[in-house]
Amino acid sequence: MNRYSISGFVLFCQYLIFCSVFSCKPKTDVPPYVIAIHGGAGTIGKKNMTPEREEAYKQALTEALDLGEKILAEGGSALDAVEKTVEWLENNPLFNAGKGAVFTHEGTHELDASIMDGKTLAAGAVGGVRTIRNPIKLARKVMENSPHVFLAGRGAESFGLLHGLDTVSNSWFDTEHRRDSWQKALENERQDSLHGQGYLNQSDDIRFGTVGCVALDRNGNLAAATSTGGMTNKRWGRLGDSPVIGAGTYAENGVAAVSCTGDGEYFIRSAVAYDLVARMKYGGQSLKQAGDAIIHQKLPAMGGMGGLISLDAQGNIHLPFNSEGMYRAWAKPGSRSINIFESFN
Amino acid sequence: MNRYSISGFVLFCQYLIFCSVFSCKPKTDVPPYVIAIHGGAGTIGKKNMTPEREEAYKQALTEALDLGEKILAEGGSALDAVEKTVEWLENNPLFNAGKGAVFTHEGTHELDASIMDGKTLAAGAVGGVRTIRNPIKLARKVMENSPHVFLAGRGAESFGLLHGLDTVSNSWFDTEHRRDSWQKALENERQDSLHGQGYLNQSDDIRFGTVGCVALDRNGNLAAATSTGGMTNKRWGRLGDSPVIGAGTYAENGVAAVSCTGDGEYFIRSAVAYDLVARMKYGGQSLKQAGDAIIHQKLPAMGGMGGLISLDAQGNIHLPFNSEGMYRAWAKPGSRSINIFESFN
Repeated sequence: MNRYSISGFVLFCQYLIFCSVFSCKPKTDVPPYVIAIHGGAGTIGKKNMTPEREEAYKQALTEALDLGEKILAEGGSALDAVEKTVEWLENNPLFNAGKGAVFTHEGTHELDASIMDGKTLAAGAVGGVRTIRNPIKLARKVMENSPHVFLAGRGAESFGLLHGLDTVSNSWFDTEHRRDSWQKALENERQDSLHGQGYLNQSDDIRFGTVGCVALDRNGNLAAATSTGGMTNKRWGRLGDSPVIGAGTYAENGVAAVSCTGDGEYFIRSAVAYDLVARMKYGGQSLKQAGDAIIHQKLPAMGGMGGLISLDAQGNIHLPFNSEGMYRAWAKPGSRSINIFESFN
Repeated sequence: MNRYSISGFVLFCQYLIFCSVFSCKPKTDVPPYVIAIHGGAGTIGKKNMTPEREEAYKQALTEALDLGEKILAEGGSALDAVEKTVEWLENNPLFNAGKGAVFTHEGTHELDASIMDGKTLAAGAVGGVRTIRNPIKLARKVMENSPHVFLAGRGAESFGLLHGLDTVSNSWFDTEHRRDSWQKALENERQDSLHGQGYLNQSDDIRFGTVGCVALDRNGNLAAATSTGGMTNKRWGRLGDSPVIGAGTYAENGVAAVSCTGDGEYFIRSAVAYDLVARMKYGGQSLKQAGDAIIHQKLPAMGGMGGLISLDAQGNIHLPFNSEGMYRAWAKPGSRSINIFESFN
């Protein structure tokens, strides 16, 4: 070999080393679409759950998943998938969102929702809505038909009316199950002398409750949506994390989509949804590392319970929770999972 | 020199190199306290400003700074300093917060505020408040006397009444200057056929307006507070970033305290206040790098105008803005700065 072929050989070796260091990571196959949903987290123990009730929840999660998956499979957008799936969950009285929302201290319903498009970082959120049948549709209208992101109370309802959304009387959201929870919470409050503080001291299964959906579509776009009736017996116009972009909901193409459920106050203070995205963007954490750090370390250290559903741009799914259970499900072509109690990842 | 002394010399050299790489960075002297304030950002051009008006703003910023600095100098908490300073700014009709707040579309005032304690990550926020004289005091009450973080509308006011806060009629917030801006905005809207979109098309000096304060106290605690009347001619219960923890306000001990002002919608979508903290925590960016990346790159790329005030745990100060001006000031022992137009860092 002359000096040129030796130099060539050395260069070739350097090229191989370069490749092995920078390029030859195992390729991940990004699935064409992915969807994940949740129906709230809390003390959802087997002891509180009859087989019939468990079956009803699993059936509802399956139907919601079917709806969202169909949209994505047919080439629909992540944004449409999350909106329509959350709308379906709002219409199902099993879940604390839309029909079936919990009662406020005054015996009314105040609904919160938000939606975010990872492609544009456009977002819409509504808080304290009483008469719009599907708050998630209102959130999307705010996103697409106003210069604003966040509308609250009567004003948000006026905006919904202007845009032709279906309205209902506030009592339309009533269900017997939620009325019983409210009455129980009022009774707990009566027993508690510490007015204004004690009413959080109720069993977890009536504290939590939210629905949410995250999706990755065939065009690589991410989206997230969240909707809730909030906390049973809430008062003073309390807003949780669900209508707060960055706390309950966030989506950013190339990074992740997130929807949260749990102790809303802790999720706001930790900006949970955006924190997950930031840990990935700036800290190089994986979806799983970021979600686990928040749900299993940061929040419990503060005293916060709950969970989140998340997808990254590569189609990885992570649904961590630190409560006893979380109604949750996910699907991608050829596989799906529906769970309530046991943690699967 | 024998082989042992040569080895010793080599080890010593390696030690010196190690020190120079890892340990011998110039030490920063953390000042005992630091405070920074803002009174809003926007198209605050010299052409719109008489010398008298400029002097009035500078005088107001000076007095607010004096108040906050006195609290910190005497060993008061960062939390007290930011609350009391923002309360003072709310009471000054020059600024769009409290007395002097802008008018809504309907000719009323709807006030938003939030406060955060970096030591505990406790936070309080209120949105759409009409009759509480000092919304920042209400935000602190929410933080300290309720299990909640975020209260809105009439409910938030009921909570304030329960806790003995001063109330006023909504018209108490009226000022002639803001009424004129509102009338001008209504006229612009009439000229604009694109109902519901066009009313943002007004001059910037009436779009922006917020007050805020960040502080580092003698115990190393950080805090942040923000208060605003929102956008002139706002409607539909619009909330901006000021009451959104993570968007308009954030404080985390060991990292930074932030208060924002500008196009609230962009600040919500980018979770600006928490984004600054996250860039520092996870990305290792300095306070200046993080603030500049957000204000001079990320937001302008989306179309968002505004600025922020920020302090880090080492007492560094950074007050970036991408608008023509931002009312701003800072102080630490032995030095202070008060500016409106020119960017000083």
